[in-house]
Amino acid sequence: MTQGMLTLYYTPHTCALASHIALEQAGAKYQAVRIDFSKNEQRSPEYLRINPKGRVPALLTDRGVLTETPAMLLFICQSFPSVNLAPLDDPFALAEVQAFNSYLCSTVHVAHSHRMRGYRWADDAGAIAAMQRKVPQSVGECFDLIERELLRGPWVMGPAYTICDMYLFTLAQWLEADGVDPGRFPKVSDHRRRTSEDPVVRKVIADELAAF
Amino acid sequence: MTQGMLTLYYTPHTCALASHIALEQAGAKYQAVRIDFSKNEQRSPEYLRINPKGRVPALLTDRGVLTETPAMLLFICQSFPSVNLAPLDDPFALAEVQAFNSYLCSTVHVAHSHRMRGYRWADDAGAIAAMQRKVPQSVGECFDLIERELLRGPWVMGPAYTICDMYLFTLAQWLEADGVDPGRFPKVSDHRRRTSEDPVVRKVIADELAAF
Repeated sequence: MTQGMLTLYYTPHTCALASHIALEQAGAKYQAVRIDFSKNEQRSPEYLRINPKGRVPALLTDRGVLTETPAMLLFICQSFPSVNLAPLDDPFALAEVQAFNSYLCSTVHVAHSHRMRGYRWADDAGAIAAMQRKVPQSVGECFDLIERELLRGPWVMGPAYTICDMYLFTLAQWLEADGVDPGRFPKVSDHRRRTSEDPVVRKVIADELAAF
Repeated sequence: MTQGMLTLYYTPHTCALASHIALEQAGAKYQAVRIDFSKNEQRSPEYLRINPKGRVPALLTDRGVLTETPAMLLFICQSFPSVNLAPLDDPFALAEVQAFNSYLCSTVHVAHSHRMRGYRWADDAGAIAAMQRKVPQSVGECFDLIERELLRGPWVMGPAYTICDMYLFTLAQWLEADGVDPGRFPKVSDHRRRTSEDPVVRKVIADELAAF
């Protein structure tokens, strides 16, 4: 399927990295536009017209804007099917991919968000501090499950590199800052090392930091 | 695509309702097995072998177990394509469906969960109470966005009834208990009323409550 120019709105060190890697891996024609959280650009009137949620990532296409990482990743797979980033024609296998990515967005990322974004769920400073204290445990339990049950090896879904790998790699970058020792998760750590050596991944990270 | 017998593990009044409605609407051959939270069955060794996450829903298929509502809903659509519960062959439109459902699971359901499941993110009783106090605001803001930006009408994606409608209906059932006045959201309330009158939806809810 041909696509016009795509525009990815991203901020370094956010989950937008997963979609950025997928676009590059797919060979998509895209530009990446940085949204500067330090200037609160995600809340600017211009950006809220693109994404009323006031978050990154967002993907501008010739048919409109997409948000939410699991949806954007699926869109990239389906738009560039020859790149084989997900088992599109196998309903069970595709659902396994979507289940893994849904777990990352609704449970792993959410656990992590209680460190810096506790104000979303409580107003009280003491409550926000209590949430921060639990992040090492809650994020650690998520990665225990990934290590023990979900990551098949060598890639998340087994022999094939998929959109799950880009997304897991992205969230695993946050372990140290969340106060979780990555050494507890040998399979996740090995996965992260191998993914970080991928030339596409290296290019995308370099591009994000250079623009920053 | 033909499917063997499917087994849905559910608990009444949970997000499992969305997948239950989808299975019934698709005409799937399935049985529904109730997991009793009051007996902590979701943490029993038997159930943890089915779903190590210790949550509902889970869907047992002849190829293994699926979890996570957005993934299960996509699986049901792709397994019963003639029922047309999602625009499977249109990458952009399907991504819009998945983006809406991803927002429900990662933001709306998560906001709601801070009322009864605050222990996931803090240990302190005061913090858990502070989270509960903010639920009317955080859930209310989610439904403001749905009302203003996301629900096109008459159905979520416009003229076609999709898996987004089953999932939105399910989460909208929780508004009153979350301390949010549904009257603030005329489009959501109208959507909820029309969905509740669907014979398939009525049958599934009656089945869940009868088994209960």
